[in-house]
Amino acid sequence: MIAMKYTFNKAIEILERTPVVLKTLLSGLSEEWTMHNEGAETWSPYNVIGHLIHGETTDWMQRMAIILDDKSDHKFKPFDRFAMFEESKGKSMNQLMDDFEKVRKENLAKFKALNLSEKQLDLKGVHPSFGEVTLKNLLATWVAHDLDHIQQIVRVMAKQYKDEVGPWVEYLRILK
Amino acid sequence: MIAMKYTFNKAIEILERTPVVLKTLLSGLSEEWTMHNEGAETWSPYNVIGHLIHGETTDWMQRMAIILDDKSDHKFKPFDRFAMFEESKGKSMNQLMDDFEKVRKENLAKFKALNLSEKQLDLKGVHPSFGEVTLKNLLATWVAHDLDHIQQIVRVMAKQYKDEVGPWVEYLRILK
Repeated sequence: MIAMKYTFNKAIEILERTPVVLKTLLSGLSEEWTMHNEGAETWSPYNVIGHLIHGETTDWMQRMAIILDDKSDHKFKPFDRFAMFEESKGKSMNQLMDDFEKVRKENLAKFKALNLSEKQLDLKGVHPSFGEVTLKNLLATWVAHDLDHIQQIVRVMAKQYKDEVGPWVEYLRILK
Repeated sequence: MIAMKYTFNKAIEILERTPVVLKTLLSGLSEEWTMHNEGAETWSPYNVIGHLIHGETTDWMQRMAIILDDKSDHKFKPFDRFAMFEESKGKSMNQLMDDFEKVRKENLAKFKALNLSEKQLDLKGVHPSFGEVTLKNLLATWVAHDLDHIQQIVRVMAKQYKDEVGPWVEYLRILK
């Protein structure tokens, strides 16, 4: 393995495809695949899409702005990890996926229009839990966070078959 | 959570979309996203697609046939987890994804044509490592194995940014 350095172009490759990946993975699936979770206090694929929307509307762009605003104290507001339980109410899975696609597209247009330089990647913000972080950390996390939640969605789906696979549970890392 | 019971229709929902999910996730990505792995002895997304092809051509359908053949001793042949390193040689990522889509489509056509009954799900085969398994176990594993490898692909991709996310590594389960 040779790890990657953060670059705007390669990050955008992932960010712009996530909504389409989610639609390809989830559209038209039976509700048993999309509405079940992994047990008490865990999220279904449906909940995850709501969480991704909340990140687009309240977190990534706002924190980017706080880092870039040289008149600010650069302190991030805490992110509400449970807001989507209220916000998604009454919305269908397809509606949520359309909403996510729309806000992601808008945010990427704004992000590209900022025309950030590599030098700005070292600018800093203050995270409520772990203190100083760089713009690069935030932007790389935006990407890794997408992948993390795709992973979560397929894990929750696979777990629905945990009993059905019998002894193969031993070979399937996703079920551990 | 309420786990699912294996049913042919809901399993096929996943099996038939996996090749398209992989294309949506990986087509047109920079090689740094698709050819890097997680370190020594681990697989890149490119290697995973080769492994999925090898499963379609030598494993799932063959084991199904062994279970269903009442003149056989029902013993599975061991699966070669490393065959794709040889078989994928000289093939592009897009070619492998096309190959996977093609063999999966052919296998699903054959699978549907078998017109299996729910009763047949209890028929048995003998796995080289863990002995007796049912057709249901095999068929549920075919599905969970797809999801396991989608999970692996996004994990390998996310790990490319492990250093870049800085302190957020704490919050990203995919990087643990």
